[in-house]
Amino acid sequence: MNYQQILDTIYEEMSYRDVSGKVASYIPELARVDRKKFGMHVYCGDQENFSFGDSDECFSIQSISKVFTLAMAMRLMGEDLWDRLNVEPSGDPFNSLTQLEYENGVPRNPFINAGALVLSDILVDQLKDPKRELLDFVHKITGDTSIKYDETVAQSEKSTGYRNIALVNYIKALGNIKCDVEPIVDFYFHQCSLSMSCAQLSKAFMIFANKGRVLETGEKILKPKTVKRINALMQTCGFYDEAGEFSFQVGLPGKSGVGGGIVAIHPDNYSVAVWSPILNEKGNSELGMKALERLTTLTGVSVF
Amino acid sequence: MNYQQILDTIYEEMSYRDVSGKVASYIPELARVDRKKFGMHVYCGDQENFSFGDSDECFSIQSISKVFTLAMAMRLMGEDLWDRLNVEPSGDPFNSLTQLEYENGVPRNPFINAGALVLSDILVDQLKDPKRELLDFVHKITGDTSIKYDETVAQSEKSTGYRNIALVNYIKALGNIKCDVEPIVDFYFHQCSLSMSCAQLSKAFMIFANKGRVLETGEKILKPKTVKRINALMQTCGFYDEAGEFSFQVGLPGKSGVGGGIVAIHPDNYSVAVWSPILNEKGNSELGMKALERLTTLTGVSVF
Amino acid sequence: MNYQQILDTIYEEMSYRDVSGKVASYIPELARVDRKKFGMHVYCGDQENFSFGDSDECFSIQSISKVFTLAMAMRLMGEDLWDRLNVEPSGDPFNSLTQLEYENGVPRNPFINAGALVLSDILVDQLKDPKRELLDFVHKITGDTSIKYDETVAQSEKSTGYRNIALVNYIKALGNIKCDVEPIVDFYFHQCSLSMSCAQLSKAFMIFANKGRVLETGEKILKPKTVKRINALMQTCGFYDEAGEFSFQVGLPGKSGVGGGIVAIHPDNYSVAVWSPILNEKGNSELGMKALERLTTLTGVSVF
Amino acid sequence: MNYQQILDTIYEEMSYRDVSGKVASYIPELARVDRKKFGMHVYCGDQENFSFGDSDECFSIQSISKVFTLAMAMRLMGEDLWDRLNVEPSGDPFNSLTQLEYENGVPRNPFINAGALVLSDILVDQLKDPKRELLDFVHKITGDTSIKYDETVAQSEKSTGYRNIALVNYIKALGNIKCDVEPIVDFYFHQCSLSMSCAQLSKAFMIFANKGRVLETGEKILKPKTVKRINALMQTCGFYDEAGEFSFQVGLPGKSGVGGGIVAIHPDNYSVAVWSPILNEKGNSELGMKALERLTTLTGVSVF
Repeated sequence: MNYQQILDTIYEEMSYRDVSGKVASYIPELARVDRKKFGMHVYCGDQENFSFGDSDECFSIQSISKVFTLAMAMRLMGEDLWDRLNVEPSGDPFNSLTQLEYENGVPRNPFINAGALVLSDILVDQLKDPKRELLDFVHKITGDTSIKYDETVAQSEKSTGYRNIALVNYIKALGNIKCDVEPIVDFYFHQCSLSMSCAQLSKAFMIFANKGRVLETGEKILKPKTVKRINALMQTCGFYDEAGEFSFQVGLPGKSGVGGGIVAIHPDNYSVAVWSPILNEKGNSELGMKALERLTTLTGVSVF
Repeated sequence: MNYQQILDTIYEEMSYRDVSGKVASYIPELARVDRKKFGMHVYCGDQENFSFGDSDECFSIQSISKVFTLAMAMRLMGEDLWDRLNVEPSGDPFNSLTQLEYENGVPRNPFINAGALVLSDILVDQLKDPKRELLDFVHKITGDTSIKYDETVAQSEKSTGYRNIALVNYIKALGNIKCDVEPIVDFYFHQCSLSMSCAQLSKAFMIFANKGRVLETGEKILKPKTVKRINALMQTCGFYDEAGEFSFQVGLPGKSGVGGGIVAIHPDNYSVAVWSPILNEKGNSELGMKALERLTTLTGVSVF
Repeated sequence: MNYQQILDTIYEEMSYRDVSGKVASYIPELARVDRKKFGMHVYCGDQENFSFGDSDECFSIQSISKVFTLAMAMRLMGEDLWDRLNVEPSGDPFNSLTQLEYENGVPRNPFINAGALVLSDILVDQLKDPKRELLDFVHKITGDTSIKYDETVAQSEKSTGYRNIALVNYIKALGNIKCDVEPIVDFYFHQCSLSMSCAQLSKAFMIFANKGRVLETGEKILKPKTVKRINALMQTCGFYDEAGEFSFQVGLPGKSGVGGGIVAIHPDNYSVAVWSPILNEKGNSELGMKALERLTTLTGVSVF
Repeated sequence: MNYQQILDTIYEEMSYRDVSGKVASYIPELARVDRKKFGMHVYCGDQENFSFGDSDECFSIQSISKVFTLAMAMRLMGEDLWDRLNVEPSGDPFNSLTQLEYENGVPRNPFINAGALVLSDILVDQLKDPKRELLDFVHKITGDTSIKYDETVAQSEKSTGYRNIALVNYIKALGNIKCDVEPIVDFYFHQCSLSMSCAQLSKAFMIFANKGRVLETGEKILKPKTVKRINALMQTCGFYDEAGEFSFQVGLPGKSGVGGGIVAIHPDNYSVAVWSPILNEKGNSELGMKALERLTTLTGVSVF
């Protein structure tokens, strides 16, 4: 498959001028990002990289980091994790507080904020230095030790993150948080601040397209069953309130972040990351979704 | 692939004795079904049929019929259908009334009852004899004109269907139902009463695994884009509150019914139907899910 | 107390020109009412009537009728009624469907629509000719046999009453409605269509200010305890989502209707009815509330 | 009126043995209270005190303190307070988080926890030493400077108060909290820990039965209109999910706390406090409600 030609076609066809959404603005660091940014990277192996635009520029991966912490928590707990989290789509437009109320503190899935905060609690509880270990994890699966947190972003999230602090306290009141609130949110705001490029992200996610192994080294990071579970979760819950639409348009498991990044995988084939900070009404990258739709259409790859 | 051998293995491994759920009981006709029933049918073409157990015995397909009415409504309206319905998972354990209240009468997806009732309204509004035309549709895609409604089941649904009648009236109050309530629910209770076997169902669903064409005749029933949409909806919304778990265990688009049937498709490969009336807590066939999990595992087929 | 002088003062001070709300418009019969209408009647006994403006003109009493059906249901069932209804304020801005869902079909109180429909079910179930008997009840407590239903209004309610029909079906699905849906809503739409003047309403409500007896005849209609219960319910639940504000401004038990009428009682003193069809945002008569606030302030009567 | 005789009758009639509820147990300090405790005090003036049982023993007044902070906030802001709080009953059995979500951070009334936390924010924002000033306020209206916080209770509330901390953070995220979270909850947990006897409480609440003035000194503490507002709020919202029942049984404005105390007022007549730590299912003192019902019945005082 000539991926580079397909990417070139996409890059030619699309422009930030065609979309009308807004860049995330709840913290200044995200609001400041240039809305013209647009990059994409398809990773099939270290010798098979295809890309365009700003694919090497780092951005705030935000919620995409939830896939990493989910992987780490599953390494620690396996399927026992589902005593503390559920695996079903949320579908609740009114954010998750209401749902938590009905479901006694067990978040609907690991990708809503409530779920990711329970993951944080688990990692803070079981790891000596969770921030360090998350970096180690990302370094190992990318082979790139330059990846780091953006402390300015992390501090900024902290200063406006009342809703997330409310969530942790609320889940703690309902009995599903063990640790103190402070280290949990500190870890959470740091994971959101991870700064990575499309090139780095696509390489990182290759473990989910490669049955849990780092493609280049062959090192086993996750069990195949764990990968299957994570991919199923990305398929049904990876796109906030737009999982159904993404499943139709793109048809691949994936995860988006409000920084404008989206990563998706085609198991046994490739991992792809795209970045454009302009978001649609549901909070997903507008150009990113279009680009991925074109990619799966032009490559003739479609689950359905 | 030796499907028959795999089915034989599944049939040997599994028994109704291994599951502890209950048969649906809200109408006497369903409560009366023998809990020992268990059948499965894989359809790859008229010359390639594989099955075991009660695969030729007809049962009440119930919610599986929603996929047929969705297909019919999309033939009439195409993607304009989404002005009146949404395409996202519901995730609401408290049934859909609450959600309708927030979302002004636009059901979250076509497979929750509220959504299927809007589909009924569309068919009742646009077709001369919707009950006749639904039968014609099913006869055409199966090549089997013996398939019919079970009038006893239809009447029984009617006499206890206050919640569905409430839904139609409520959506009508919110402005998203055009026709009178009576013919809408009459049609809806009839579609649920369709009586089909695993063999018939798997053949019927082959159009969704074959880009919209009847495999044997080549007749084009649906546009490829419509099939893509329907499959994406089955993937994310086909299993009530258990879509995420089904996506993990089976990984195929599918649809279940409280009669204990489940149909799933592996695009470009096969369509499969399974039936066991014993339901798990979420209302899906317990043995059915296990059997499909084994099928995808043993055939090595897994989307993820 | 010189009530006539106080009423004259109120009539001089206030005008429909001072309020900016809208007349109810969901049925043409209500939309057509002249927004200039304004009348008030204080009843202390047949020899002590005080009034101004359109106090003798009949209007649609709408939800005020719920107090009559509550009184009739309590005569039949006494405090056993509370097995099927609750006595607490609703406070739910999203109408009562959601709340019913949580509370298994037991409406929060008799004055929300769900509650009034359960009252209708009880009366339809236990009375031979409930429409006739409601008229008889009203005729007896007013001594005025000219009071009747407005059939045009009743039919009009019926043709747009999908939400109420939804409610009955839904409560029936939850097990708290015994009779068929049709006679229940027929009775309900008729009770709402009762056409009465301020003079008639204030006389009718005197039984609640007079420990359950008709003032003029001394006939015992209700037990004192029943009256206490009904008055407590009017105090806490009589004004939709504005019970707290009414309690502050007026401080008397009362009930309003979307026809623009409000009745209130000052136990052992008087009963008062006011009518102006212009509604505030919460659905209560804007001028009516102001007039009652002035009445209690000028008479120095205040519970608090 | 021979109040002492009536109180003696009540004391004779009732016993902790007659009720089956439980003492509050969410903090050890409350769980440890002797369930046999039972006291009552009617205050008509310093020369007219009537009481029985443990009326001079101090207990944790808990939510009763919300009336004091409401009074203080209204002194600072008057009716402008209602820009930040609503005045309607909540009626939400699922606690207030859901409701806050719908209503953009404006609590339904000042007596649900969310509302009381907004009051805390106002006092912390506008007063130099809010804990000191609350004590001063209570000392002034009781003439008793021995009243103080129970630091053990305050610390205990703090260590289990995750739900309240969640509420403050959540309201802050919605824009209706100005100050830092820490001092707000510190103040809130202290106000709940106020330790007072029935004798002290009934004297304190006399300002609400005396148009805002301290009865003995005549000092004006609150405007009459403020008192009217507070009394209306106690009438409609003072008893959690049992305001309607209390209105029926007792008919007086009042406020309860999970410590087992209830205070109620009969404007221009008396103020009464009762204490028994055994709570009914709705969280109100079981014996306390019964005792107040008897008091209003035996004194022939009934609003309705």
